[in-house]
This record gives sequence, structure tokens and C-alpha cells, in this order.
Amino acid sequence: MEHVFLPPLSRVAVCGGTHGNEMSGVYMVREMQRQKLEAVTTVLSNPRAVDACRRYIDTDLNRCFPDELLNAPITDSSPYELRRAHELNAQLGPKGSDAAMDLVVDLHNTTANMGLCFIFYSKDWLTLHIYKYIQSKMASVPLRVIQLDIPISEAYSLESVGKHGFAIEVGPQPTGVLRADIYNMMKEALDLTIEWLQKFNSGSTFEGGEVEAYVRLESVDYPRDPKTGEITAAIHPQLQDNDFKLLRRGDPIFQSFSGETLKHKGEELYPFFVNECAYYEKKVAFLLARKVTLTFPSISLKRD
Amino acid sequence: MEHVFLPPLSRVAVCGGTHGNEMSGVYMVREMQRQKLEAVTTVLSNPRAVDACRRYIDTDLNRCFPDELLNAPITDSSPYELRRAHELNAQLGPKGSDAAMDLVVDLHNTTANMGLCFIFYSKDWLTLHIYKYIQSKMASVPLRVIQLDIPISEAYSLESVGKHGFAIEVGPQPTGVLRADIYNMMKEALDLTIEWLQKFNSGSTFEGGEVEAYVRLESVDYPRDPKTGEITAAIHPQLQDNDFKLLRRGDPIFQSFSGETLKHKGEELYPFFVNECAYYEKKVAFLLARKVTLTFPSISLKRD
Repeated sequence: MEHVFLPPLSRVAVCGGTHGNEMSGVYMVREMQRQKLEAVTTVLSNPRAVDACRRYIDTDLNRCFPDELLNAPITDSSPYELRRAHELNAQLGPKGSDAAMDLVVDLHNTTANMGLCFIFYSKDWLTLHIYKYIQSKMASVPLRVIQLDIPISEAYSLESVGKHGFAIEVGPQPTGVLRADIYNMMKEALDLTIEWLQKFNSGSTFEGGEVEAYVRLESVDYPRDPKTGEITAAIHPQLQDNDFKLLRRGDPIFQSFSGETLKHKGEELYPFFVNECAYYEKKVAFLLARKVTLTFPSISLKRD
Repeated sequence: MEHVFLPPLSRVAVCGGTHGNEMSGVYMVREMQRQKLEAVTTVLSNPRAVDACRRYIDTDLNRCFPDELLNAPITDSSPYELRRAHELNAQLGPKGSDAAMDLVVDLHNTTANMGLCFIFYSKDWLTLHIYKYIQSKMASVPLRVIQLDIPISEAYSLESVGKHGFAIEVGPQPTGVLRADIYNMMKEALDLTIEWLQKFNSGSTFEGGEVEAYVRLESVDYPRDPKTGEITAAIHPQLQDNDFKLLRRGDPIFQSFSGETLKHKGEELYPFFVNECAYYEKKVAFLLARKVTLTFPSISLKRD
């Protein structure tokens, strides 16, 4: 397979608080700012939502970064997060330009039992190199990579403004709560990311290879009352906390409040973001993925 | 020991959504309303907070029920929850009067790993009868009773407006999330409470006895930066999820973001509400209790 040479990945940003109630990233960024690390730009993405300890003030900041929204005009009456997205794009991007950060890492938590996940867009296989490195160093941690298969112009999340970017998603952790075990897991992954970058920038070659990844396909909503729209069932105990366990036809997925069990009728796929707190309003009880093997080339520093 | 005769406990209220983001009670009350059970009055305590999926709008409703606040004048500019507390007191109380509900049960969730807890005020040992009954029927569930040792005039929570009252607190569950396992546990406890009431009202005698209870003594705050007030440490992994496990001198209680371990220096006591989401703002990392044995009398129906 081809061997790819890349310029140094020297301008790196680590962002937390893109969702203001996902506490690991908030405290991670604050601690990095206290330590005044010079190698990394640290950003508290949504300071007003962090102060309010809410996911967002007006609209979900992490849906504000497709080209269409970044190129639209902003006024004083635009939603707070849209205005903030334009500020972040100016600071860390502009998206798609030579001036953009070489790498943007955005830190997230979920209430789902997902362990440590790397989430990236289809073409950005640099994530797979870093993921593979971390996998070799954190063997005892449940570690997975999730691919969102959409073009970067439509990519809606903060890390898409960098030349490269990925989200680190760690759970389970309730919103508004900081758990040391989850924080420590995120910190180790972040420290190893920075270690990988230092090795790359120092001239190390990283061999290509293969990783197993989960490609997001579709979402499943909670059963709802057709009149009121209120949910009428909870995630079934056999699905709860079983993210990334193959869902077969006939497996229970919901338990209704009247005691009925609802079963999976579709294709055999892998559920994730099971019972994620913030996805109730998005009408998502869980997402479904196909497991694939992704191949990526060897990489080393391009010397002038 | 004495034998106590009580009039029928026929006017019973079950309340949920006193905290708008504690979902088991919200969905339980909605389901009971859908079923139109005639024996029980059901109340969604804080509908505006439920709609917003937040703990409260202006102030914590479950701190609005001491006599002092219920007797203070209300205006249109009073905090929403204080106005709502007066409405609830009129509907379910008035607190301390003959017109009050015979029993008020308020349904809560916590992000702490507390299992199923009954929380009651010092004198209301009726709770202990119901607790003992449920204990005999739900042997496999972690079940505990917590005593708040303050006079009923100072009691600040909703259930204190009834002639008798207790809170059912179930965890761990993230705020804004509904877990079927937690919901099922709460439903079973509630169904058994109603079963106990039916037996009592039908003339069954319930023997007195003893139960182990946890008496709340004091609270411990997170370590904080003296200048900014921001927390500088998380609950230590050895304390996280270990509610009701005796905390000995020298046991780790916090892990600072710089990696230091902080140890317990005080009396040997039992921690609970460990890392409860809503208590960050109350400056409570966990509460401490003493374990005691409580004795209560036999009880049966007083016949005219």
C-alpha cells in the first residue's frame, strides 16, 4: 500500500465543554489551562453552557459546523451557539483552509456505556493511526472507533474545522457529574495522542494497517404515544449498557411502561449511544452501526 | 412495647417530578395517571421543570416546605417553586392540619449508587413499617432507610406536608435518563407500599420490631480553589459507587486533577449521596451517616 508523507502536525487544539454538561472535557481543559502547556491550544468551546451546566443555551453547538451554517451571515439575533461557532471557526479554522489547525480533538461524554470511543469522518484516517497507537498502550480499556460516513463539507461537529480532527467520547457518565475513572481514561487517551504527535513530528514512521470500526447507519426512536409524542417505553434491561453487542432479530429492545417487551425486527447491527441523555430530544433511543475493517497507509513526516 | 392504633390511611398521594430531571418519578406518575387508579392521588409536582427537563426553574422545590416558607406571603414575583409549594401545600396539606393527606410518597432519583432508599423524618416511624414489609418482599434489592433527624416544622421536602410521608430515592440513574432497571425497582416498591396500605386498612396488624437505619450527620464538600471556587478534585475511584460502605480513617476520598490522593480524616461513618449531580451546587460531595437500630411499635387499625 502507498506510503504517505505529511507536513508536521504542530498546531493542535484540544476542546472541552462543547456540550456544557459533559464534565470530563470541561475539567480537562481547565486543568490544561492551569498547567499552561505550550504545545497545545486549549479551548472551552461553549462557556455560557458550561456556566449553566447545560448541553447548550439556544441550539446544539456540535451541530453548527457544516459549511452551509459557517458560510451563512450572522446577526446579533442569531442563536448564541451559531455565533460561537463562527468565533471558533475563526480561531481554529477556517474550516477547509490552510490556516486551520493541523489537528482538533474535541472531548465528550455520554451517559451510554460506550467506554472510550474515537469518532471521525470518513476520509480522516489520521485518527486511525492515533487510535491504533492508543489501542496498543491501553489494552485493558474498552476502546472503539466510530466512522461517520459523510463529506467534510456536511460534517457538523467542531473537530471538522481542523485539517484533521476527531472526537473522544467517554462513558458512561451522567451529565453534570465528574467521575474519576472516566476522567482518567480520557486523560490517558489525550496524553497518548500528544505523545503520538511528538513522535510523528520527531520523524518516527508509523506503519499502516487495519482496524475494526463501526460505521453509523441509522437511528431508532423510542416508542411514543401518537397523540402526545411522549415516550411509552424505556430501553429494555437486556439492551441497556450493552452498546456494541450485536443486536439480533428478536432481541428485546424496549420495555413499555405497561410491561410489554418490544423486539428488534431489522437487520443484525451493532447498537451504540444506547439511552444517551441528550438524544431523547433528537428522537434517538440508540444508533445502529455496521462493523467493518478499515485499511490505512503508512505515514511519516514530509521533509522539505 | 406499646401497640398503636391509627385511623385508616385512605388518602394517599404519590408525587413525581418534584425534581424535573429525575425521570423515574415523572414517568411513573404519568403512567399512573394514564391508568386512572382511583385509590391514589397522583401529582406531577414541578411541571415547568419537567417540561424543561431541569431540576428546577428558580429554586429547589424540595427545599420549599419548612413552616417558615409555607407561612410567608407569596406575590407574583415570588420564585416559581415557592408559589408551586403553596399550591401543593393547599392540595396535599395544609402541613400539620387534619385536612392533610394521610400519606405522601415522593419519588426521586440520584446519580449516586444508592440502590433503593426510603428517606423519612425522625418521628414518622410509619415509614419503617412499610420499609420492613418491602424488605421482606424485595430481598435481592439493595434497600436502606435514611433518617433526617429534624423537627417536622423545619422539614423542607414535599412529603412533609402529609400526616405521614417519605421519599423513595433510587439510583444510580443519570438525570434526564430513564433506566428500566431503576424504574422497575421503584415500581415494585410503590406497588408494595400500596399493598401494605390495603392490608392495613383491611384490618391487618403489623408487628413492631427493629430496623437498621442511617442517620444523616454532616456533609463533605469537594476540594476547591480558594480563589475561583472551582473544584480541584473528583471523588476517588475507591469511594465512587461505594455508598453505605464504612469510611475509615485514611481511606481515599478525593483524587485531585494533579493526581494527588486525599484521605478521610474524620470519624468512621457511612457515606451516601456520593457524587450526586445536583449537590455540586450545594457544595456537597457526599453525606455522612451513623448506622443505628430503630425500634418501632406494633400497629393496627383504630376502629370507631
